[in-house]
Amino acid sequence: MYRPQIKVVDCTVRDGGLMNKWQFDEKFVKKVYESLAEGGIDYMEIGYLSSEASFSREEYGAWKFCAESDLRRIIGNEEKKIKLSAMADIGRIDYDDILPKAESSLDMVRVACYAHQVDKAIDLAHHCQDKGYETTINLMAVSTVGLRELDEALSDLAKSRVPVIYLVDSFGAFYSEDIDTLAKKYMESLPGKTIGIHAHNNQQLAFANTIAAIINGINYLDATLYGIGRGAGNCPLELLISFLKNPKFKVRPLIDAIEQEILPWREKIDWGYFIPYMVNGVLNQHPRTAMACMESENKNKITAYFDQMTAATDLL
Amino acid sequence: MYRPQIKVVDCTVRDGGLMNKWQFDEKFVKKVYESLAEGGIDYMEIGYLSSEASFSREEYGAWKFCAESDLRRIIGNEEKKIKLSAMADIGRIDYDDILPKAESSLDMVRVACYAHQVDKAIDLAHHCQDKGYETTINLMAVSTVGLRELDEALSDLAKSRVPVIYLVDSFGAFYSEDIDTLAKKYMESLPGKTIGIHAHNNQQLAFANTIAAIINGINYLDATLYGIGRGAGNCPLELLISFLKNPKFKVRPLIDAIEQEILPWREKIDWGYFIPYMVNGVLNQHPRTAMACMESENKNKITAYFDQMTAATDLL
Repeated sequence: MYRPQIKVVDCTVRDGGLMNKWQFDEKFVKKVYESLAEGGIDYMEIGYLSSEASFSREEYGAWKFCAESDLRRIIGNEEKKIKLSAMADIGRIDYDDILPKAESSLDMVRVACYAHQVDKAIDLAHHCQDKGYETTINLMAVSTVGLRELDEALSDLAKSRVPVIYLVDSFGAFYSEDIDTLAKKYMESLPGKTIGIHAHNNQQLAFANTIAAIINGINYLDATLYGIGRGAGNCPLELLISFLKNPKFKVRPLIDAIEQEILPWREKIDWGYFIPYMVNGVLNQHPRTAMACMESENKNKITAYFDQMTAATDLL
Repeated sequence: MYRPQIKVVDCTVRDGGLMNKWQFDEKFVKKVYESLAEGGIDYMEIGYLSSEASFSREEYGAWKFCAESDLRRIIGNEEKKIKLSAMADIGRIDYDDILPKAESSLDMVRVACYAHQVDKAIDLAHHCQDKGYETTINLMAVSTVGLRELDEALSDLAKSRVPVIYLVDSFGAFYSEDIDTLAKKYMESLPGKTIGIHAHNNQQLAFANTIAAIINGINYLDATLYGIGRGAGNCPLELLISFLKNPKFKVRPLIDAIEQEILPWREKIDWGYFIPYMVNGVLNQHPRTAMACMESENKNKITAYFDQMTAATDLL
């Protein structure tokens, strides 16, 4: 599946950090950086842009903030090897804290927002564009948004200057038929813009839905090493790159990074296919209750979790 | 996705047993039996039909043989609660060992074969039909079969009396586009027959490919509890049943069985998404080398495994 317009965005550190408050050490982040560059991946999303007034460096690792000094530690004294991206945390970032592009190692700022925050997101994205960055807006949790509200959000995004708009399956609730339907809707509603996909794996469909997105003409593809990410995690980067069969990409460096840095975290945190995440995916719910279950001593009491979550619904 | 013709076949004991030589205790098999019945699943494939002359009861558990006395221990003195199936091990079963249906608790015998064994498989399936059983033929490893050979096999199967023919992705190598292509081919080549799907999860596509099969009109669907099965395992039954949203099915008993009997095995055997299985899936290879790696002390040496498997190919 070779299409030159396709860009792959690795979110290993940014989305994986949602599972450990970005407590990845420098060796981890450097290895991911080197391996993605070697693998020909287009972008590395290295964390969030958040203000240190909103979050403490004692509780959160460096990649919650992505200070320029943190980025420089990873890049070192050589030329930067891969484009870097950070996700701006809407409402938690002071515009004045965002450096002009000329003073920053970041190439792209992505703004994640819910449908009701689209105006704020456009404002922040425009601000970043004016400072010289590539930008995207990632419209989250679309699986919970009503048609009227979605049309309004897409209409606002269509009028913006933001060139890339993401279809985000935050809750891992979509089947590929949903991706077909929504990809067509995004294409029609956002003429001239590039569409991206960010899928979660609650129903083991993140990779399949990313393929469905590709087939529907979506060109910005999010993935993470071994699928590491919040809850059930994301589309596994190594699967996506194997599928794309584009000579610019290499799988081996990704496998090496998984062996060196991801497998050790597999022993410490539980992303991937677990029944609590599956239940929340089917029910189209935020993963927070499932994550709380997985972090508790009731991790394996999955029938009780099922009963708790389905008490007020016949969806399952 | 309600379609009355859809039949779901659980292969938990049969395919899961490939990971532990069917060393499931009676409590395990009884719980699976009760839970599948309560969940409204159409068939439980409880093991293989093999001759005790070919395999030893010391090495293999009861479900390698499915003797009538073993089946009776599970069913007990009550009426049978769910249709039972067994897979006949071609070349390892003496025809005379197969009881007439009237003396057996089995309802269905499925014959798995490679393309070059189709004639033998048809002969065995006809024999079972003549003894009163429902039958299917499961044509394995289609991802490695050339077009001429596949056409010949399908042509032979079309002429047989066997009513259900399975499309089997033994190596977890197929993308949903392959399923689209092959489902259409099977439909056209096998007029009047019912088509089934048996998918493996090497690339996290077993569930997605099963959905693709459903969309293409395939009506016999194989799955296992929590995806337990050889190598990367199978389509997870709980996901499939959630998707089908047919009032005859219930998910809760499946979750309960997973909690009680499958999670404890999760600590002992490694089915599911692991890089060695992923590599074999992408390379369209039998899982045996990946299983050997996973059972060795080199389980986490995935880069070495990658190098070994890709030394003679540029597929990855």
